[in-house]
Amino acid sequence: MSDTPRFHPVGEAQRPFYVGIDLGGTNIKVGVVDDLGRALSYLSIPTEVAKGAEDAAARMGAAVAQVVQSAGLTQADIARVGLGSPGTMDIPRGMLLKPVNLQGWNDFPLRDRVKHHCSLPVTFENDANAAAYGEFWVGSGRDLHSLALFTLGTGIGSGIIIDDLPIDGENSHGGECGHTIIDFSPNARLCGCGKRGHLEAYASATAVVQRTQEALEAGRASSLGEKLTQHRRLTAKLIAHEAEAGDPLCLEIVEETARYLAVGVVNLLHTIDPHGVLLGGAMTFGGHETSVGRRFLAEIRAEVRRRAFPLLAERTVIDYAALGSDAGFIGAAGLARLEHLKHK
Amino acid sequence: MSDTPRFHPVGEAQRPFYVGIDLGGTNIKVGVVDDLGRALSYLSIPTEVAKGAEDAAARMGAAVAQVVQSAGLTQADIARVGLGSPGTMDIPRGMLLKPVNLQGWNDFPLRDRVKHHCSLPVTFENDANAAAYGEFWVGSGRDLHSLALFTLGTGIGSGIIIDDLPIDGENSHGGECGHTIIDFSPNARLCGCGKRGHLEAYASATAVVQRTQEALEAGRASSLGEKLTQHRRLTAKLIAHEAEAGDPLCLEIVEETARYLAVGVVNLLHTIDPHGVLLGGAMTFGGHETSVGRRFLAEIRAEVRRRAFPLLAERTVIDYAALGSDAGFIGAAGLARLEHLKHK
Repeated sequence: MSDTPRFHPVGEAQRPFYVGIDLGGTNIKVGVVDDLGRALSYLSIPTEVAKGAEDAAARMGAAVAQVVQSAGLTQADIARVGLGSPGTMDIPRGMLLKPVNLQGWNDFPLRDRVKHHCSLPVTFENDANAAAYGEFWVGSGRDLHSLALFTLGTGIGSGIIIDDLPIDGENSHGGECGHTIIDFSPNARLCGCGKRGHLEAYASATAVVQRTQEALEAGRASSLGEKLTQHRRLTAKLIAHEAEAGDPLCLEIVEETARYLAVGVVNLLHTIDPHGVLLGGAMTFGGHETSVGRRFLAEIRAEVRRRAFPLLAERTVIDYAALGSDAGFIGAAGLARLEHLKHK
Repeated sequence: MSDTPRFHPVGEAQRPFYVGIDLGGTNIKVGVVDDLGRALSYLSIPTEVAKGAEDAAARMGAAVAQVVQSAGLTQADIARVGLGSPGTMDIPRGMLLKPVNLQGWNDFPLRDRVKHHCSLPVTFENDANAAAYGEFWVGSGRDLHSLALFTLGTGIGSGIIIDDLPIDGENSHGGECGHTIIDFSPNARLCGCGKRGHLEAYASATAVVQRTQEALEAGRASSLGEKLTQHRRLTAKLIAHEAEAGDPLCLEIVEETARYLAVGVVNLLHTIDPHGVLLGGAMTFGGHETSVGRRFLAEIRAEVRRRAFPLLAERTVIDYAALGSDAGFIGAAGLARLEHLKHK
C-alpha cells in the first residue's frame, strides 16, 4: 500500500469517488480516484495467473475494499468501479475470451465476477484503452481533443480516444497498432505474435534488444561488449544507459527505433488524424529526464516531419505520457466515471 | 439530368428531403435524397475549376434549385443540404484550405458561399467520408455498425464511420489511408504525393499501370503487348479486360494488387477494428460482375486471413461498395439529415 505524498488527502478530494483496476499478467493495480482524476490510495497485488480467474476476481474484490478503507472512505462513497484488462476480450459482454497473458482464463465473465466480489457496478475496458483514457483525462493528453497512446515495452500496446471515448472496435480489438504492418515483404522481421513486418517487431524493447544483439554479432564496437561479459543480460534499459553514456552503437539503435516508431505514428495520423500521440511504457529511454530520452523524442518528431502531411506534422502534438504505470487504473476509474455520469 | 427508373417517384418518397452535393475535380454531382436515402433526381455539372470557387458555388446553388424542381419539390421541402468536398479543408469552419484537385480555390469559405447561393443550411464534409457515410447509410454497409470505405481510382481515398459518424480528425485529415506506409524502406515506391512506401503507390490504378509497364519492359509476355501497339494507352481498365480474358500477367498484377491492398486493410483492422471494410471506385476490376473482380476480392480476403488476427479475419466483412459514384451525394445528404435531426 502506498501513501506517498503524491496522493491527495481525502479532505481535499472531490466526490464522487471511483475505483480503478488495472489487471496485468504479473500485477493488479487497484486505486481510489476522485472526480478530478486524483489518486487517493492504491494497492498492487500479484495476479497469480495459475490460481485462475475466479480466485483473482475474489482478490480484486478484497483489494477494492482495502483501498477504499485505506483512503478513509466506505463502500457507499464509491460510485462505480472501472476494470481494464488485457485481451482478447468481448467488452460489451464483459468477457475474457482467450487472453494471451492470462493463460487459462478463457471465456470467463470477468466483469460480472468482479462485480459480484466487490458489490459495486463495474465498467469493463481494454487495458491499453483505459491507459489512453487516463492520459486523456488527467495526463499529458488533458488538453487534447483526441489522442493515441503507444505503450512501449516488451510489446507495443496502443489505445485511441476520439470524442471522449475509447475506440473499442467491433470485436474489442481497437488500437492494436503494434501489429500494423510497416514492411510487407516476406523477409520482414518476425513479430512476437507470429506474423511478419509489424511495428512491434521493429520498435518494442524486444526488438531493440534483438537489433542490438545482431549488431554486436556483426562485430560492431560498443561499450556494451564489456558490460555483457560481466554476466549481465542485454536489455533495453542497459542499451538506454550506454546510449546516455555516449556509446555510438546504442545511440544509433535508439534513433533507428525512433524512426521505426515514427512510421507507426504517421500511419495513425493518416488514418484517424488525432490531436496528439503520446508515448508511454518502460521503453521510453528515460523520457524527458534523460538526454537520450529527449533525443529519442526529437528523432520521432523529425521523422514524422519527413513522412507525414506537412499540416499534420506541424500541428499534431507528439510527447511523452505523464502518468506512468498509474495511467491504467486512473483511466479505468475515469471510464467508470463516464458511465456513472451517463446513468445519473 | 437523369430520370432513370432507379430513381424513386416522389409520391412514394419519405419526407423530409435533403440535397447532397459531391464536389469533384472534374464534375459536381447534385441530388435530392429522401429520408430513407433514396435518390429522387440528380444532376451532374462540370466543376470548371479555372473559373474559380465563387463561380462554382453559384452554379451549385443553381443546381440545387434545378434538382429540387426536377424532383417535383420546392425549396421549402428541403430540410438541409450536405456538401462533400475534397481537401485540404477545415470542416468545422467550412473552409477549403489548399485543395490539390481544386487549384486556386485556396482559403475559400465554401460552406457559407454555397449556403448563400442556395438559401438553405449546409453541412460540410470531406468527400471520402461522405461516400463512406452513403455506403453506411443505404449501401453495402447498411447492416454494419462501423466501416471503412476504400475508394480505388487514380489514387486511394478512404473514409471511416464509427458510432454513426465520420472520423473527421482534428485537422480534417481523417481517413487518408491511401497514404499509410506499408514499406518503410528508402527505396520503396514513390507515391503521387511525393512520399515513399504509401499504400497508394502500390495499389491505386496509377500503381497498377506502372507495375504492369515495368513487367512489360522487363520482357514479360502478355496479350497487352499486341493491344498497346494499336495506339492504345495502358490503363487499369485494359489490364482488367485482359485479366478477364485470361492473360496470366494481368491476372498476376490483379492478385498482387489485392495482396498490397490487404496490407492496408489489415492495418485498418488492427487500428480501429471496424465491422466491415468496403471497396469502391473505378478500379475494382468489375466487382462482383466479373470473374476477375471476384478473384480480386477473394485474394484480398485470403491475404487478410494470412495477415490479420484470426478473430478479425474471420469476423470482419470485406466486400464491394454498392452505390458507385452516387455514394458521395447520397452520403452528403445523409450527413445533412443527421445534422437536421440533431437540431430538431
